[in-house]
Amino acid sequence: MQQIELYDSTLRDGAQAEGISFSVNDKLEIVRALDALGIHYIEAGNPASNPKELEFFRRAGELRLRSAKLCAFGSTRRKGVAAANDQNCAALLEANTPAVCVFGKSSPLHVEEILRTTPEENLRMIEDTCRFFVEQGRELLFDAEHFFDGYKADPAYALATLAAAARGGARALCLCDTNGGAFPWAAAEAVRAVCASFPAFCVGIHAHNDGDMATAIACAAVEAGARQVQGTFLGFGERVGNASLCAIAPNLQLKLGYSCLPPAQMEQLLPAAMHIASVANITVRKDTPFIGASAFAHKAGMHADGVLKNSASFEHIDPAAVGNRRRFLVSEFAGKAAVLRRMQKLYPALEADSPAVAQIVAALKEKEFSGYSYEGADASFDLLIRKRMGDVPAFFELISYKVLDELPYGNERSATATIKVKVDGQVKIAAAEGDGPVNALDLAMRQALAGLFPALGQVQLLDYKVRIMESAIGTGTKVRVLITSGDGEKQWATVGVSHDIIEASWEALVDSVAFKLLEGRA
Amino acid sequence: MQQIELYDSTLRDGAQAEGISFSVNDKLEIVRALDALGIHYIEAGNPASNPKELEFFRRAGELRLRSAKLCAFGSTRRKGVAAANDQNCAALLEANTPAVCVFGKSSPLHVEEILRTTPEENLRMIEDTCRFFVEQGRELLFDAEHFFDGYKADPAYALATLAAAARGGARALCLCDTNGGAFPWAAAEAVRAVCASFPAFCVGIHAHNDGDMATAIACAAVEAGARQVQGTFLGFGERVGNASLCAIAPNLQLKLGYSCLPPAQMEQLLPAAMHIASVANITVRKDTPFIGASAFAHKAGMHADGVLKNSASFEHIDPAAVGNRRRFLVSEFAGKAAVLRRMQKLYPALEADSPAVAQIVAALKEKEFSGYSYEGADASFDLLIRKRMGDVPAFFELISYKVLDELPYGNERSATATIKVKVDGQVKIAAAEGDGPVNALDLAMRQALAGLFPALGQVQLLDYKVRIMESAIGTGTKVRVLITSGDGEKQWATVGVSHDIIEASWEALVDSVAFKLLEGRA
Repeated sequence: MQQIELYDSTLRDGAQAEGISFSVNDKLEIVRALDALGIHYIEAGNPASNPKELEFFRRAGELRLRSAKLCAFGSTRRKGVAAANDQNCAALLEANTPAVCVFGKSSPLHVEEILRTTPEENLRMIEDTCRFFVEQGRELLFDAEHFFDGYKADPAYALATLAAAARGGARALCLCDTNGGAFPWAAAEAVRAVCASFPAFCVGIHAHNDGDMATAIACAAVEAGARQVQGTFLGFGERVGNASLCAIAPNLQLKLGYSCLPPAQMEQLLPAAMHIASVANITVRKDTPFIGASAFAHKAGMHADGVLKNSASFEHIDPAAVGNRRRFLVSEFAGKAAVLRRMQKLYPALEADSPAVAQIVAALKEKEFSGYSYEGADASFDLLIRKRMGDVPAFFELISYKVLDELPYGNERSATATIKVKVDGQVKIAAAEGDGPVNALDLAMRQALAGLFPALGQVQLLDYKVRIMESAIGTGTKVRVLITSGDGEKQWATVGVSHDIIEASWEALVDSVAFKLLEGRA
Repeated sequence: MQQIELYDSTLRDGAQAEGISFSVNDKLEIVRALDALGIHYIEAGNPASNPKELEFFRRAGELRLRSAKLCAFGSTRRKGVAAANDQNCAALLEANTPAVCVFGKSSPLHVEEILRTTPEENLRMIEDTCRFFVEQGRELLFDAEHFFDGYKADPAYALATLAAAARGGARALCLCDTNGGAFPWAAAEAVRAVCASFPAFCVGIHAHNDGDMATAIACAAVEAGARQVQGTFLGFGERVGNASLCAIAPNLQLKLGYSCLPPAQMEQLLPAAMHIASVANITVRKDTPFIGASAFAHKAGMHADGVLKNSASFEHIDPAAVGNRRRFLVSEFAGKAAVLRRMQKLYPALEADSPAVAQIVAALKEKEFSGYSYEGADASFDLLIRKRMGDVPAFFELISYKVLDELPYGNERSATATIKVKVDGQVKIAAAEGDGPVNALDLAMRQALAGLFPALGQVQLLDYKVRIMESAIGTGTKVRVLITSGDGEKQWATVGVSHDIIEASWEALVDSVAFKLLEGRA
C-alpha cells in the first residue's frame, strides 16, 4: 500500500484559530499525543512570531519521540538580506528541530502586491533560504503559498518557485491553497502537473476549508499523486480552519486504500481526538465526520432497520476502525469492550463476564447521561471503577461547606469558605480566604485535612477548565469542570458536573485528592 | 447563467439529526424563511412517518409562498400492493402539496436485503408510484436511494430504476449518496452517465457528509450536469448531516458561475441562517464556511497585513456577498492597523493619527498583559473603544453584590445573590436564588434592572467558557471567562478576567448587557 505522510499543524496553523491559545504544557501534551498516534511530522510553531515559542522548542527537544519529526515553520529570508543575516532564519535555526518548513510565495500577484519585490528576487529568496537550512543539516519542506491561485494566473512562474526550492535542496514541495478558494478537481489537475515536473520529490497538499471542501481537496490531491497531507488534527485553524487529519486519514486509509497510520493506531483516532480537544479546551462536535458521537448514530427507524440487516446500507465504514461506535438513538448501549479494557488495567484478573463490568457500563451510561465525560478525566473514571469495586476508603466525609463571595470586598480577598468534614470519626472545621470561591474552598479543604494527609502538600492544581453542556442554554444549565492536578511527578485529570460551578469544582477537587491518596497507599 | 434548483430538506432529513425536533410552528417559520430567501423546493416532511405531519401540511397549505414549492416525501408503494391501496401513498396524497418526492432503491443489494423483493417488482414499484402521483396532478421528483453504491455494483440496474421513474412521469431524477460514502470524482462520473442517458430530465444530487465532502460532491455533480441540489439549509441531518445549502449555493453562484438565488437574497444568507438556527435551537458555529463568525476573521498579523493590501490574498470571496463581514482579531499577533480598522467601523471619520488610536493600542496591550483576550470577545473590544471615546453611558453602577454558595443547601437552589445597583440616581436592591453562583448573580442583576431595560428580557446566555491563565498555576491564579450572548437575531461575545471566577463572570455579563443596551440605543 502506498504510504501517505501526515503533517500536523495543530500547534501552528491551529493556534491561529479564533479562541485557541496553547500554553507550553498544552503544546508538549499535544506533541506527545500526535507522536503516540503515529503522525509523521509535527509543525510546532513559528519561532519568529513569538519569543515564547523558543521556550517550547527547548523543552520539546527533550521529548523522545517515536514516530514524529518536529518541524519549525517560518518564512523565506527577507528581500535583499542574506539568509545567514536574517532574524527569522536565525530564530528558525535556534528552534533546533530536525525538520524545517519554509513558506514562500508562488503567485506573481502576491510577490508584487504583498512582498513588493521582483519575481526574480522571490525565486532567489526561496532557493537561498532552502539551501541555508539544508546546509545546516535540516530536512527542508517547502510550503508554496497561494500555489493554486498562482498556478492559475501564471503556471510557469508557479512551477519556477517549486524549482527554486528543489534547487535549494527541499525534500518536499507542498502546494498550499492559502485562501481556501480551490476546488478538488482544479487542485488535482495542478498536483498532476507538479508530480509530472518533479517526479523525484514528495509533493504535499495544504488545504483550507473556506469552501467546505478541504477534505475533498486533500483526497483528490493524493489520488493525483500527492504523498504528504498537511492539516490540523481536528481541523481548527485560521478562519474556518484547515483540512482535518481526522477526516482525511480514514478516508485515505479505510476507503481509498492508502496507508497513513498503523491500523491499531487508526482505532485510537477517536480517543486521541478527544484528548487533544480537551487540551485545546474545545468540544468535538457530535456531527464531526468519523469521530463525532453522532457519526454512526441512527435515528430514523428505517435507517436502524437497514443497518441491522446490512450495516453498509447506512454506514460508509465500520465505526470501530476509527474507535467510534454505532448508536441507535432510542436504545443506546455503551462500549463494553472499552470499559473492560480499562477495568483490566486496574484489575488484571477480571473476567469479561463479571457482573462488575455490566455494572460499570450501566454506571457510565447514567453518568454520561447526566453530563459527565471521562474522555479528558482518566483519574475520575478510575475512581468510578474502584468505588464500584469497593476499593476506595472514605478518606473523609463532607458535612458542609459555605462560600461567600463579594464585591467590593472588605478584606484582601474576595471569597471566604468555611468547611466541616469528618475524618476518622472526628469533626474538623476550617475556614480560609481565597482569591476566588474555588480557591477559598480548596484552601479550606487542605487546611481541614493537612495534619492527617501530608501527601496533599505536594498536590498542585495545574489547569482548570469549564464548559457549559453542549446544546444547553443559559447560566442555569449544567457545567462540567475539568481539573488537571500534579505532584511534580505525575499529572492526573478529574471531572465534576453540577448546575453549580462551585459544586462541580468541589467534586473534581475531591476526586483529585482521592486519586492522590490512593496512589500513596499503593 | 445556468440556473440550479435548490431543494431544502431541513424539515425532513434535518429533523433526523440527533437533538433536533421541530414543533408545527417551528416548521411553518422555517418554510417562510426559506421561501423569502428564494429556495425552490421545500421538502417538509414524510406524512406517513408521523400523524402530526398532516396537521402541519394542512396549515402549510394556507401559506402564500412566493418562490418555493412545498414537497411531501415518502417511499414507493409496498411490494405487491397497488399504489391506490397503499397507506403511505394515501398519506402523501393527503398532504396536498404541489410536489411529491418518492424515494426508491437503486441498488440490487438493497432491493434484495432490505426490501426483500425481486429487482423486477422494485422497478414496477417505482414506476407505478410515480405514475400514481402524476395522474393525481402532482409534480413528481424521484430520489434514487443508494444510487452511487448501486451504480458501482450494477450500473445497468441502477439506470433501469431511473428509467422506471422516467416512464412513470417523474420530472427530476435525484441521485442519492445515502450512506455518505461517495467521493466527488466518482459521483461526477455517475452523474455524467445519467445526464447522457436522460437528457430530457432534471438530474439532482443528494449528498451526505459522512466523508466530510458533501459540498464537494454536490458541486462536482453540478459541474457534471446536475441541475438540482438537495440538502439541508445548515447541513444538519441524520448522522453527521446532509450537504449544506449554505455552503453549496455560494460556491456555485459566487465561484463557479451558476445562478442559485437572486443576488440580493444571497446577501441575506447569513441573517437567514441565524434565523433558522435560532428556530432549530442550535448555534451556528464560528468556523462554518461562508456564514460563520470566523469565516473572514484574520488573526495572524501577516494575514491581516495581506488582506489589507489585497483582500483576495486570504479571502476566497467578498464576505458581503453572503451577508458576512471581515474581522481582524485583536491578539498578540495583530498591530495598529487592525485596531484602526475596528475603530473606523464604529467611527468612520477617525483619522489614523488620532491620539485615540494610540490610546486604544496602549489600553489593549495593558489589558492583554493582565489576561484579557479580545479575539473571542468582539463586543467587549467595541465597548473598550466606545468607553475611551466617552460614548458609553453609565447605564447602571454596581454598589455591591454578595453571593453565598453552600452544600448541602437548605432550599431548592445552592446559591443566593444579593445585589445593590444605582440607576438614574436611585438605589435598587434585588436578590435571587440560582442553580449556581453565576446564575444567581445573573438573575439578581436582571431583576434589579428589569423594569428599566425591558430589552434585556430577550438576552440569553448561549455559551460560557472558563480558562485559567496561560502559565498560571493553581486555583489562586487568574481566570478568563468568555460569554456568548444572543437575542434571537444576533450573537455577541464578551470577556471578563479576575482572580475570582464570579467577578470575571460578572464583568463579562455587564459587558453583554451594555452591548445590548447600546445596540438598542442606535
